[in-house]
Amino acid sequence: MAVDFTPAPEVAELAERTARFVRDTVIGVEETHDGVVPSEDVRRELQAGARAAGVFAPHASPEFGGHGLDMCGRAPVFEEAGYSLLGPLALNIAAPDEGNVHMLEQIATEEQKARYLAPLAAGDIRSCFAMTEPAPGAGSDPDALATTATRVDGGWRIDGRKWFITGADGAAFSIVMARTTGVPGDRGGATMFLVDAGNPGMTVGRHIPTLDESLYGGHLEVEFSDCRVGDDAVLGEVDQGYRYAQVRLGPARLTHCMRWLGIARRAQDIAVARASEREVFGSRLADLGMAQAMVADNEIDIHAARGLILRACWELDQGRNGGLEVSVAKTFTAEAVWRVVDRSLQLCGSLGVSGDVLLGRFLREVRPFRIYDGPSETHRWSIARRVVGRAGKAGR
Amino acid sequence: MAVDFTPAPEVAELAERTARFVRDTVIGVEETHDGVVPSEDVRRELQAGARAAGVFAPHASPEFGGHGLDMCGRAPVFEEAGYSLLGPLALNIAAPDEGNVHMLEQIATEEQKARYLAPLAAGDIRSCFAMTEPAPGAGSDPDALATTATRVDGGWRIDGRKWFITGADGAAFSIVMARTTGVPGDRGGATMFLVDAGNPGMTVGRHIPTLDESLYGGHLEVEFSDCRVGDDAVLGEVDQGYRYAQVRLGPARLTHCMRWLGIARRAQDIAVARASEREVFGSRLADLGMAQAMVADNEIDIHAARGLILRACWELDQGRNGGLEVSVAKTFTAEAVWRVVDRSLQLCGSLGVSGDVLLGRFLREVRPFRIYDGPSETHRWSIARRVVGRAGKAGR
Amino acid sequence: MAVDFTPAPEVAELAERTARFVRDTVIGVEETHDGVVPSEDVRRELQAGARAAGVFAPHASPEFGGHGLDMCGRAPVFEEAGYSLLGPLALNIAAPDEGNVHMLEQIATEEQKARYLAPLAAGDIRSCFAMTEPAPGAGSDPDALATTATRVDGGWRIDGRKWFITGADGAAFSIVMARTTGVPGDRGGATMFLVDAGNPGMTVGRHIPTLDESLYGGHLEVEFSDCRVGDDAVLGEVDQGYRYAQVRLGPARLTHCMRWLGIARRAQDIAVARASEREVFGSRLADLGMAQAMVADNEIDIHAARGLILRACWELDQGRNGGLEVSVAKTFTAEAVWRVVDRSLQLCGSLGVSGDVLLGRFLREVRPFRIYDGPSETHRWSIARRVVGRAGKAGR
Amino acid sequence: MAVDFTPAPEVAELAERTARFVRDTVIGVEETHDGVVPSEDVRRELQAGARAAGVFAPHASPEFGGHGLDMCGRAPVFEEAGYSLLGPLALNIAAPDEGNVHMLEQIATEEQKARYLAPLAAGDIRSCFAMTEPAPGAGSDPDALATTATRVDGGWRIDGRKWFITGADGAAFSIVMARTTGVPGDRGGATMFLVDAGNPGMTVGRHIPTLDESLYGGHLEVEFSDCRVGDDAVLGEVDQGYRYAQVRLGPARLTHCMRWLGIARRAQDIAVARASEREVFGSRLADLGMAQAMVADNEIDIHAARGLILRACWELDQGRNGGLEVSVAKTFTAEAVWRVVDRSLQLCGSLGVSGDVLLGRFLREVRPFRIYDGPSETHRWSIARRVVGRAGKAGR
Repeated sequence: MAVDFTPAPEVAELAERTARFVRDTVIGVEETHDGVVPSEDVRRELQAGARAAGVFAPHASPEFGGHGLDMCGRAPVFEEAGYSLLGPLALNIAAPDEGNVHMLEQIATEEQKARYLAPLAAGDIRSCFAMTEPAPGAGSDPDALATTATRVDGGWRIDGRKWFITGADGAAFSIVMARTTGVPGDRGGATMFLVDAGNPGMTVGRHIPTLDESLYGGHLEVEFSDCRVGDDAVLGEVDQGYRYAQVRLGPARLTHCMRWLGIARRAQDIAVARASEREVFGSRLADLGMAQAMVADNEIDIHAARGLILRACWELDQGRNGGLEVSVAKTFTAEAVWRVVDRSLQLCGSLGVSGDVLLGRFLREVRPFRIYDGPSETHRWSIARRVVGRAGKAGR
Repeated sequence: MAVDFTPAPEVAELAERTARFVRDTVIGVEETHDGVVPSEDVRRELQAGARAAGVFAPHASPEFGGHGLDMCGRAPVFEEAGYSLLGPLALNIAAPDEGNVHMLEQIATEEQKARYLAPLAAGDIRSCFAMTEPAPGAGSDPDALATTATRVDGGWRIDGRKWFITGADGAAFSIVMARTTGVPGDRGGATMFLVDAGNPGMTVGRHIPTLDESLYGGHLEVEFSDCRVGDDAVLGEVDQGYRYAQVRLGPARLTHCMRWLGIARRAQDIAVARASEREVFGSRLADLGMAQAMVADNEIDIHAARGLILRACWELDQGRNGGLEVSVAKTFTAEAVWRVVDRSLQLCGSLGVSGDVLLGRFLREVRPFRIYDGPSETHRWSIARRVVGRAGKAGR
Repeated sequence: MAVDFTPAPEVAELAERTARFVRDTVIGVEETHDGVVPSEDVRRELQAGARAAGVFAPHASPEFGGHGLDMCGRAPVFEEAGYSLLGPLALNIAAPDEGNVHMLEQIATEEQKARYLAPLAAGDIRSCFAMTEPAPGAGSDPDALATTATRVDGGWRIDGRKWFITGADGAAFSIVMARTTGVPGDRGGATMFLVDAGNPGMTVGRHIPTLDESLYGGHLEVEFSDCRVGDDAVLGEVDQGYRYAQVRLGPARLTHCMRWLGIARRAQDIAVARASEREVFGSRLADLGMAQAMVADNEIDIHAARGLILRACWELDQGRNGGLEVSVAKTFTAEAVWRVVDRSLQLCGSLGVSGDVLLGRFLREVRPFRIYDGPSETHRWSIARRVVGRAGKAGR
Repeated sequence: MAVDFTPAPEVAELAERTARFVRDTVIGVEETHDGVVPSEDVRRELQAGARAAGVFAPHASPEFGGHGLDMCGRAPVFEEAGYSLLGPLALNIAAPDEGNVHMLEQIATEEQKARYLAPLAAGDIRSCFAMTEPAPGAGSDPDALATTATRVDGGWRIDGRKWFITGADGAAFSIVMARTTGVPGDRGGATMFLVDAGNPGMTVGRHIPTLDESLYGGHLEVEFSDCRVGDDAVLGEVDQGYRYAQVRLGPARLTHCMRWLGIARRAQDIAVARASEREVFGSRLADLGMAQAMVADNEIDIHAARGLILRACWELDQGRNGGLEVSVAKTFTAEAVWRVVDRSLQLCGSLGVSGDVLLGRFLREVRPFRIYDGPSETHRWSIARRVVGRAGKAGR
């Protein structure tokens, strides 16, 4: 027992294979399509490639065809996958399916696993996670949850409106968070339900146009109106939804960080390559002090984010709550990745804002991460509360 | 003679009228079209509206149908126009036409004014300014100018490649900067030429896809190959192009700042309106400290940028070089506007990244301004050189 | 009526004379004493020099021996005085006397003016302003005022504790803010009293050791216990103290800004001189990009602060409230000056942290300005409230 | 082999004991003396306390009375020691002795170890490291080394001037870096010499007054003039000085980081305690959003710095060069610690700038760390060169 940063050998090898697959196979597709997967065919083709390369579903347990990585193992592999906007979809570790696989493994029944988890882990179907609601519903503040599930004969009836439901277009099923106790504003109890596509009480509405466009299946509005499901649709136990949400959200925040860290590294590599060949004012751009400062700040941000992510992963792998570490890692990484992409674009000048490199695309894709999964301000509030609380306990 | 911030009465009135026109007429069109003018019809309709409102062409001299504002007069009027992405086009003060009108008034011959300036100031035609070249040509470093103009029988022959030529698609004429003395890397001499659309030696190439999309007429590649023009195409004097470029660029940088300051104010207004009505964690968002800090920082940035712009305008209006003041104002404003839009978007949360408000659009539009018209790094280098040089002189 | 940045001729001339006096006379004394006036003799000698140079008391009205400058006139003159830590004391425009002169001119009776203002403006005596209290009393939040004044036979009785009372050691009189209506926590009414040194009910306590050390007369604790004063000790009207505090505080915040802006310019000059002669890695430091970025950022901060200060001055000179403009200028300037001194010190490397240049001294002196006169956070809160309130009014 | 953040049990226990010793014994002494050890008696008393607590010399090998910690082991222990400005001296791990012990263990001969290392590790004597020179000598740029050592009969003659030689006042010996090959400006070869106090060719000059004051023994000017030493004074091999400097500097940078991280944590604890009890505007300061943002940013900075330090330690423990990781950790930590102390002071308001808490002292002590051990700009330059070089290799 002592500090060790060496990844397990099978992790190191998988990360290496993933890096190779992304460089040799994925980036070409990404550049052709400006970072946005255009069709189900392309999705399937990418996933077939990942399977052939032996890098598919690194997070799923072997039982479901995956590599069974813990969080510390995911960190380097997901970062390599995230080196391209299309890498995560290729490996079947894009949001929201990746987080749903993680959660279903932990709380679904055997029947639910067979019906939902198995085909999802295999990439045969897609899913979505319907929690976020338009104001004044559940957003930064989960206690504002307004969608309700009420007991009816033989099951439940769900009513409410969701938005920013990623991947809802084409999802075979949704995991829906609904209030089963209390009223909006106090916590009460929430329950998760599995709702199949085609349920007549569920309407998948418009694609919300957003700054980011690369998450496959879009961000959608979804409405539930007298949506009926049976008791077998309950995921885990009734009224335990907030607890399960934490099971999903902590790891999901970190896997987001890992993937976006990959994009930050890619942006830095593009900028460094450019700065190494561009001549300006009689010097190589890479030899000018202001450019060097940007390259160095990128590197510092990348190292710091990687360290914070790994530490938070380790806390979760130890079975600890890790709430502070996850918030610290998420807040820092979301802002660091943004800075890195911004500086990299600046280093490339006019080329950087053109579509001839993907930096403008990256900038659009990473910006929302400072809001999605909890805005930086909410996480800062949470961090401060934990720190102040900890001090209070120590003081007593 | 004493410090006075009161605008001249006719300026105050014109700014007020412009504000009203933008709010009542322009913003509706902008929101319908996501901030991007879709067609020549819409452009003409907007300009007709501005004419009817008595706010058209505030920068052009009365001789050419304008209001003849000096730089200090333009500052508040252009800021009001810039409150919408479409305001500047409506008033005919969008780049690059606005800067071309400014320069043509100062250096064109009477014949050139009649032929080019008059219809341009009237909005009957559009123009472009072809200076920037792809690497290793003239970008941040104007001395790298690679396009050449060589004397031939009865005129000149222009050869070279330009890119990021804003508004080139549909422009009736181009003002082309070409080297007439020396070689790339030393200053030598440059000359400006008026080249009509349709000149067989000029090829308007592809639209460069860019992060920003609202500048009408796009950013294009333009190639000159054995492009022949007569002596009457010379704008001003031969070999004086760098001097004229300064005539154009100083004011053009400031008018860019004015317009983008308008967008910053708009972003702040959108965010403040949202924060005033949104409830979160049991409080109004506008009453939460972290939100208040963002609102205050926006306000500080807006005030500071406005002060720097006005000061630089005044230097130019006094007939001084103003190079330091312009670089200071441009660098600060480009970064301040970016921060303001970014914070405003953050304040709006998921709504902010959605197309339901224009903040994501604004973010895309303002980002390149830290690169266009001289990257912040080039301006910082220029500022430092002036400061160090000034100190050296004072020391002696 | 039109925008004009030209100072009135007599202001320009006074600023020029002040600059010469500071460079020729004050800086030598400052460097000898590490920026801290060591004795009453040195204070008197400096003030005699200022009188001889014709730059003494630029803010006082001619009736009291001064130059009668308005706020816009003070801006350039105070900035020149502030170029040395000792300049303001030399000109008799250091805190708190400068603000007290300003307030007494506006609200004192003729008798009070003769007795307090005349010798204060002449530099014969010094004063202090006793408002701030230790927690939980009046600090950021003036409504927490806990010191009370109660009516007694033939006058008033003052009780309470003050701290951070600048200049209290050696002050001939204090202006004391005490609650005359209401209780701590609600505004109620406050009254200002003139209390002579030697009043047996007033105890001037310990010098609070502080990071800054250059404000003459120190920062002290002062206690009032059964402190009796007559009715003629009331400054202005009873219960109008908060209003008078605004009369003093708005201008005082700006004159602080002016003086510290002078120090920022000085720091920049020291750093630029150093960077111009220091060779490192085979280049002149001033030619290295990262150094140039610091020099440029300093220059931008200085220009922006100067613009904000002048604008707020002009608002006050117009007789407007100017609360927003003052808070914007104070917040930005306090932070900008800090950044400028910090960067300048960094540019000088080890020399910068040594006492061989005054940059470490400057760093210590300017740090508290982000707290004194209202912490940045309180001003940001105030700015946000004004902006949100303004939007609410516009919306209705 | 897998990622593990658990410290070895003996490290955890030693860190725990150190924390207890610092809180129970050291902080009282620190607060009494405003963070500056006033005398040799106090130094000896503190070290006796550390010996009694079983926490003395954690870095020295057991052979020399220490705990033999590797770099990963030092990280948590030194951080705990650094929680007080006096902790490192108490444990005998303050600069420069700590780094000298580290280096002597690796390169000294047995005779040198007996004579110099043994009493140094025991705290019986102190030492200094004489490398830095005033401009234009060796500072940021080691190749500018101007002090020379020339072969003479029976040994060497050293000539040159050093400054910022920490701990020189009272040091029993100095390790002196002198040029033995080449001329200032090219690398050539340097050699390290052990010079005893009292050598007539060495003059320990003035204490340089500095912003920081807590490093025991001060920062001094030292002059060598015909300073004669024998061959046994050579440390390691002739001309290998630059290599040995790296042996010393990499670890020394990290141990600086560890110690200052302790101060950052202390500052945060002081601020959080204050914010938890201070009421302002009717709320607890700790419940106000802007205060929470500062607390959270402190926490993020502390976590990120800790992660970067540990990672760089691990690289060194693996026997790798670790140059990139050390520069990243040093640059980030020096700036993060500065930000944390600055925010903590701001959170405490006027109290924060007073001597009633040590935050102003901490601010003075940590500022130079952005310059000492290589300014941030030099490290950024070094980081960028490594990143660009790495990219170049990967590209080929």
